[in-house]
Amino acid sequence: MRTSGPPSPGPGAQMPGGEAPVPAAEHHDDGARTLAGLGEAGVLRLIGRELAVVEERRPWPEGSVGIGDDAALLPVSPGGTLVSTDSMAEGHDWLPTWPAGVRTRGFDVGWKAAAQNLSDINAMGGVPTALVMALTGPRRTEAAWIAGVARGLATALLRLGADECRVAGGDLGGADRAGLAVTVLGRPGAHGVLRRTMGEQDLAAVRSEGGAVVHAGSAPGWAAAGLALLLTDRAELEERWHALAPQDRPGPRELVRAVRAQLRPRPPLGAGPAGAGALACGMDVSDGLGRDADRLAAANGVQLWADEAWVAEAAAPLRRLGRLLDIAPEEWVLGGGEDYGLLAVLRPGHGVPPGFRVIGAVPSSGRVPAGHRLLGEAGWDHFA
Amino acid sequence: MRTSGPPSPGPGAQMPGGEAPVPAAEHHDDGARTLAGLGEAGVLRLIGRELAVVEERRPWPEGSVGIGDDAALLPVSPGGTLVSTDSMAEGHDWLPTWPAGVRTRGFDVGWKAAAQNLSDINAMGGVPTALVMALTGPRRTEAAWIAGVARGLATALLRLGADECRVAGGDLGGADRAGLAVTVLGRPGAHGVLRRTMGEQDLAAVRSEGGAVVHAGSAPGWAAAGLALLLTDRAELEERWHALAPQDRPGPRELVRAVRAQLRPRPPLGAGPAGAGALACGMDVSDGLGRDADRLAAANGVQLWADEAWVAEAAAPLRRLGRLLDIAPEEWVLGGGEDYGLLAVLRPGHGVPPGFRVIGAVPSSGRVPAGHRLLGEAGWDHFA
Repeated sequence: MRTSGPPSPGPGAQMPGGEAPVPAAEHHDDGARTLAGLGEAGVLRLIGRELAVVEERRPWPEGSVGIGDDAALLPVSPGGTLVSTDSMAEGHDWLPTWPAGVRTRGFDVGWKAAAQNLSDINAMGGVPTALVMALTGPRRTEAAWIAGVARGLATALLRLGADECRVAGGDLGGADRAGLAVTVLGRPGAHGVLRRTMGEQDLAAVRSEGGAVVHAGSAPGWAAAGLALLLTDRAELEERWHALAPQDRPGPRELVRAVRAQLRPRPPLGAGPAGAGALACGMDVSDGLGRDADRLAAANGVQLWADEAWVAEAAAPLRRLGRLLDIAPEEWVLGGGEDYGLLAVLRPGHGVPPGFRVIGAVPSSGRVPAGHRLLGEAGWDHFA
Repeated sequence: MRTSGPPSPGPGAQMPGGEAPVPAAEHHDDGARTLAGLGEAGVLRLIGRELAVVEERRPWPEGSVGIGDDAALLPVSPGGTLVSTDSMAEGHDWLPTWPAGVRTRGFDVGWKAAAQNLSDINAMGGVPTALVMALTGPRRTEAAWIAGVARGLATALLRLGADECRVAGGDLGGADRAGLAVTVLGRPGAHGVLRRTMGEQDLAAVRSEGGAVVHAGSAPGWAAAGLALLLTDRAELEERWHALAPQDRPGPRELVRAVRAQLRPRPPLGAGPAGAGALACGMDVSDGLGRDADRLAAANGVQLWADEAWVAEAAAPLRRLGRLLDIAPEEWVLGGGEDYGLLAVLRPGHGVPPGFRVIGAVPSSGRVPAGHRLLGEAGWDHFA
């Protein structure tokens, strides 16, 4: 990293810092560096080695069936089984090399696919119990990249606190470009499931008394700022960075934090199950605070307003990145997706659960709260 | 279909016959014909309409959570939860238009993705309870194609006898080419799970007394013959067909049966749970009888041999298709994949369960059974 230029990683560089894979599998010489060279059985062995770290820490109980059969058999989940699926595709959800010069490692893809799925279980007030992955890619895909996907996925399970989550299976298939579909299973937490729709009593109380909008997890906007950075040509980034007054230039920490937020999101996994009892409704923020708030509002026939003071506070640390990219940081905070925080409405009469903070209000019918702005559509449509 | 030419469907034709979608959703004018035009919400509505037929017949019980939240909550599965995942990619698992001129409909893709996943649960002696799908594709994908995927999937659930299986969620994402990843959940059947590996007692009995190899489901080889047909250029097919003596020319029924076997496989869903008590080990045949038998053999340290009489009998109806494509039909029977039958070893002392037939033998140690051939590696590697 040069001291005179912008501190973003150079062409072909990998993301600095980040989670050390725990513990990295030994890298035997496989004698073949691509899917085609290793063949299906070889790739499966490679993936198995990377996932062993999860297997060791979460042995399959007596009577269950792990990977290797046509299906895994998970132990009974007394409260029922939560299930959700999400996929990522090269060229759409990530670029092999971003215009900014950063390369997306397999590790990043595995991490993010795990994280965004675990987030869905968290958003239901649940605890993740198992995950399966379907990985597709061309024959020329590097074996190291595939191993990285498995390692990223395993590392996310261990680092994000998915303490009960096993890897219960996978599928390998050919495709023109790499893709990863993950399905996660979970169990309801001690306080039961958190729904997107409030119960009648909660809704009546919120409508008559008003309620608080609460949020848990990483600061909204950073993943969007990271995406904007990654999508800007490196030469342009350098030029823009030099054109800024020194005090307006973002430093290495801000740049790295934003890129990491985009590539390796950290959903607040404990927050959902711990908070479910105090929350009237909730969902994770995958498509942007505004857009997801819109959905939460529409599901309940209420309005969600953001506290201007909170918006300003959340936008402040993004100011210099905003200057660099000529974007108002509030746009990232309110419109940016992929932070995988938890957005919820507090149950009237309940305290704010640990890990959450109040970021806005649901006004009682017909009122407009002072110092707030309506949270509305400003997100991301996969096809629009 | 011309009477003078080969009766394979012409260019752009869709597969004749086949499952009538049950019941087809009403086709409202959506005012937009592609994913981009409909947007994510529009596509989700479209898919929802097609899946409603499953929803209506399998209402979600009190306390469960259907589609619409961040995750679904399935009722408690007392014996534990089976889980498996499989994906399909355009250009690899299917071609939009095959050299033979047949177009792959969304319906076919949805059907097959469902079928191959349901097969995995069947192979474990289980009953499918829920399925989620992650569908990816370019913005230009036709909405009708997407609706077809959902319809095919729903129709497969209803027609294949997956009587307890709900659609529990989905994900839509962008990708350069279409892809569909399905994850299926299940519950163990009344006889418990069927494993790929025999228990100690069964293994000892098989090793000392020998055992029978049994098979349930569609006749092996037809899906492979269908694939070979689809991959042959239409003009070449016509030429080859005309060059055959009239009595060697395959008729429309054989051609259609083969193509249907490839595009819309029919796993014998009842057979796994019904037979599990009488079976020492089993798995579904996805990569070819020889290759999967190899795996089953390796998992148990035994050999699986196919009865030559059975091979001849299975190959006989494929004789004219083999002549057309200049392939020995035994190669399809033993090497072809994607029939999704169930291959198992009978528990010594047990009768052949309904739906199964004996197709070979596991000889007691060191013996070579007369009139049999060793089932071995001759299958399909996704990357080799």
